[in-house]
Amino acid sequence: MSAVTTGPIQDSTKRYEDVPGFPGMSYPVRRVNLSNGEHFDLYDTSGPYTDPQARIDVEVGLAKTRDGWEHPEPIDGAATQLVWARAGIITPEMAYVAAREGVSPELVRDEVARGRAVIPANHRHPESEPMVIGKAFAVKINANIGNSAVTSSIEEEVEKMVWAARWGADTLMDLSTGRNIHETREWILRNSPIPVGTVPIYQALEKVKGDPASLTWEIFRDTVIEQAEQGVDYMTVHAGVLLRYVPLTAKRVTGIVSRGGSIMAAWCLAHHQESFLYTHFVELCQIFRKYDITFSLGDGLRPGSIADANDEAQFAELRTLGELTKIAKSHGVQVMIEGPGHVPMHKIVENVRLEEELCEEAPFYTLGPLATDIAPAYDHITSAIGAAMIAQAGTAMLCYVTPKEHLGLPNRDDVKVGVITYKIAAHAADLAKQHPRAQERDDALSRARFEFRWRDQFALSLDPDTAREYHDETLPAEPAKTAHFCSMCGPKFCSMRISADVRTYAQENGLDSLEAIEAGMADKSAEFARMGSSVYLPIRAV
Amino acid sequence: MSAVTTGPIQDSTKRYEDVPGFPGMSYPVRRVNLSNGEHFDLYDTSGPYTDPQARIDVEVGLAKTRDGWEHPEPIDGAATQLVWARAGIITPEMAYVAAREGVSPELVRDEVARGRAVIPANHRHPESEPMVIGKAFAVKINANIGNSAVTSSIEEEVEKMVWAARWGADTLMDLSTGRNIHETREWILRNSPIPVGTVPIYQALEKVKGDPASLTWEIFRDTVIEQAEQGVDYMTVHAGVLLRYVPLTAKRVTGIVSRGGSIMAAWCLAHHQESFLYTHFVELCQIFRKYDITFSLGDGLRPGSIADANDEAQFAELRTLGELTKIAKSHGVQVMIEGPGHVPMHKIVENVRLEEELCEEAPFYTLGPLATDIAPAYDHITSAIGAAMIAQAGTAMLCYVTPKEHLGLPNRDDVKVGVITYKIAAHAADLAKQHPRAQERDDALSRARFEFRWRDQFALSLDPDTAREYHDETLPAEPAKTAHFCSMCGPKFCSMRISADVRTYAQENGLDSLEAIEAGMADKSAEFARMGSSVYLPIRAV
Repeated sequence: MSAVTTGPIQDSTKRYEDVPGFPGMSYPVRRVNLSNGEHFDLYDTSGPYTDPQARIDVEVGLAKTRDGWEHPEPIDGAATQLVWARAGIITPEMAYVAAREGVSPELVRDEVARGRAVIPANHRHPESEPMVIGKAFAVKINANIGNSAVTSSIEEEVEKMVWAARWGADTLMDLSTGRNIHETREWILRNSPIPVGTVPIYQALEKVKGDPASLTWEIFRDTVIEQAEQGVDYMTVHAGVLLRYVPLTAKRVTGIVSRGGSIMAAWCLAHHQESFLYTHFVELCQIFRKYDITFSLGDGLRPGSIADANDEAQFAELRTLGELTKIAKSHGVQVMIEGPGHVPMHKIVENVRLEEELCEEAPFYTLGPLATDIAPAYDHITSAIGAAMIAQAGTAMLCYVTPKEHLGLPNRDDVKVGVITYKIAAHAADLAKQHPRAQERDDALSRARFEFRWRDQFALSLDPDTAREYHDETLPAEPAKTAHFCSMCGPKFCSMRISADVRTYAQENGLDSLEAIEAGMADKSAEFARMGSSVYLPIRAV
Repeated sequence: MSAVTTGPIQDSTKRYEDVPGFPGMSYPVRRVNLSNGEHFDLYDTSGPYTDPQARIDVEVGLAKTRDGWEHPEPIDGAATQLVWARAGIITPEMAYVAAREGVSPELVRDEVARGRAVIPANHRHPESEPMVIGKAFAVKINANIGNSAVTSSIEEEVEKMVWAARWGADTLMDLSTGRNIHETREWILRNSPIPVGTVPIYQALEKVKGDPASLTWEIFRDTVIEQAEQGVDYMTVHAGVLLRYVPLTAKRVTGIVSRGGSIMAAWCLAHHQESFLYTHFVELCQIFRKYDITFSLGDGLRPGSIADANDEAQFAELRTLGELTKIAKSHGVQVMIEGPGHVPMHKIVENVRLEEELCEEAPFYTLGPLATDIAPAYDHITSAIGAAMIAQAGTAMLCYVTPKEHLGLPNRDDVKVGVITYKIAAHAADLAKQHPRAQERDDALSRARFEFRWRDQFALSLDPDTAREYHDETLPAEPAKTAHFCSMCGPKFCSMRISADVRTYAQENGLDSLEAIEAGMADKSAEFARMGSSVYLPIRAV
């Protein structure tokens, strides 16, 4: 196994903060050390890989930290965050995510109890650092990785996981469909600090050599148990693709674009029977409940084009997902709901409204959606537009889309671009939802920008390495990092610089109020003209 | 002068279509030739550079086509699209843009007459292919180029112009601030098929060696006339930055971030006088009217950070721009209004609402806005989110932002990324506004995708070259261009393929209606199971 990326992010240090009320428990923070002596702490998903003190050995895996936490007793045989929350119990996981998000543990407990938030944390994945998905909290993002029959190796996939977490992925889905599915997943789980999700039907289909008609409930069930034992935190199950919905897709422009959806549709038609995922759903709940696996109820009939958005097939399935949500919750199992896909902007809000109405506000987890079909190679962008808007409307987690969507599997660079793009969409939504603290980072970065603290501007950004690289392309010299201008305008034209001078002058001369200006302090103008010449003095070498 | 990029875009040919009612006039179209024998015509901004028949010589410049068109007589001495429109006259330019957009000439005339649309077309830029900016039409995008004291050459800037137009820029602003401003602009204008805008205060400031306090109305006026004579189609004028608004920026996080705004603020404070752009605005109108230059009333006090969005400084200036709009129109001069900047999503719509209310629905022309401050190096994306939303709300033209925003000047690659990103935002808005014909391209591309016509999918996309390159990274062989799968899922897992098989089976067996399914055609299932095996036959080499 080759090495994975380790080491701190630019100008940042790893810290661990105590979880109040739970002695010995701590959560990670990325502290950005600013050049003005201040610091700024950021939510940190990167795991021990960014901690220079941590000993990283992917052959051994991460520490099984959660095994050392004291969990409450099961209730009626169930040991899930949902049943504990309903019983009024604040678990270590709830306290952890509350501290991490800067909210009260009681808010977390209440949202989980109401089914409006989930904490995906399989008992068998003790390496994970708990996180919460729900509309009351910061919007989260998921990164998909996984090899196919055509590309990639286990080593590459583990590095992609570490890399995705480094740049801010809150969860990870391993969508491998090729060889070594079990082994790839094992490596990922043992080394993943973030919750891991899968789509078990992919592995089940491998077991029947790719023939959907040969699938059975038993093969699927055994696959789920195999993955549950490994520690998968949440699983996509396309149990809402019913036989009678298949014809609704016949006249679509792009039919069924979900792999799981198309597999189940083929099975239903081949057997002319209702989907075994639907008919055996209660048994599935019993398995999930044992491990505290979270359902991610898949939208197998999601639209794959603008033309198919919000159609009857999509919303028929959503109604069934609502029905299944109630069943899962009645078994104490946590649930989130997957959403589209391809949706034009004016049809986005309707998706959230319906999901909340039909699925009792279970966390919505959407793929984009892409706001247009016409930009393959840029679908991270087409979808970031839809993602930001759907998150503003209430979506709790956004599944990233990379530049390779529709064209190929993402490589390491694509994973980073996908993650950063989705951090943008999620953060834009946090701002729009006026999430407490969200704007603090924007303000800190903008202050650094206005004060020409270039290093701080880089360090506070989502991707310090690329920001610095772009800056250095035109002004590579080290003094330029503190220069009061950049290559955009050059020294004489910098609006920020002129503006700062204007401000200083106005403040020093009592011109920073409308009244003062209107009083007509003409005597000040000569003085500013004198001072003005100093504004354009050559930049000092710093 | 080095060569510029020429030649057709992948699988496309250049065509010229007649402008109805104007014999001898034609407008360009990019015809995408599909592999199924069909074709799809696209709006084409690329100019003669994509026409293999055209003789390109940048030393000579493009043909002065508009000089050959028969224009109406001036009305009261004014020869502007606005005065003609008000007089009920459909000009060649109006007919041209109507044909190009697929709308009636009368709609264009009416929108121009009402001041809700502009056609920036300086009489001295006869090389330009007219285009219309207004909320009733397709959303347009502007690309900024221009050298600074620090970087770039004339050759590079001309190639950036050709390159920006090739990928879909509807207009171009030359923001050069370095040496050879006049000469750079001359090269660009003589070779630009798209309207060109400038910010004359930049050149005026060069003339006073970078000292704002030394600026005078006379120097500015002479600069405007110099640029007008060259053929600049629209000019940004920051006439709304009034002395009394300057103190409103004192407590901002990022003060004044517009170069023009900061220059004028410095001038106002230095002289303690009202801005000469404001006090001499009528004279400016008289100059603009002579050439039919369009005002782009600059938002010199636009917010440069999330914290400063929608503040009193911004909206105070907007009120003044509304006042100036009325004056300009009373002189028969076309006007558009520039907008922010940095605005969180929940504050975007308010910008459009106020602009329309205060500025009589003059076309809004916004820079993004960026929906968050925290992603330098990705501000094309942070701003595409805001741009798509503000265009959905009614903005007529979007000024692109490149990945280098805040960090450096865009190179040729950045220009392309900026243009494509903004084509996405503009098109997403056209879809959301349910603009006639907008969805046709999405549907054509999605049909190509569903039918595995890879070449067509590339050719119909905004960037065929990159789409093909990404596809070929994992499946480079030529047969893969027609294969019924891609590297994402591999042959066995392709949802599109399974879905197409499901559809074919359902249709052939009368299972494509809910009634048929519910009638319980169990006898069909055995047949599908038999056929199902063929679904997974190895892909034929095509």
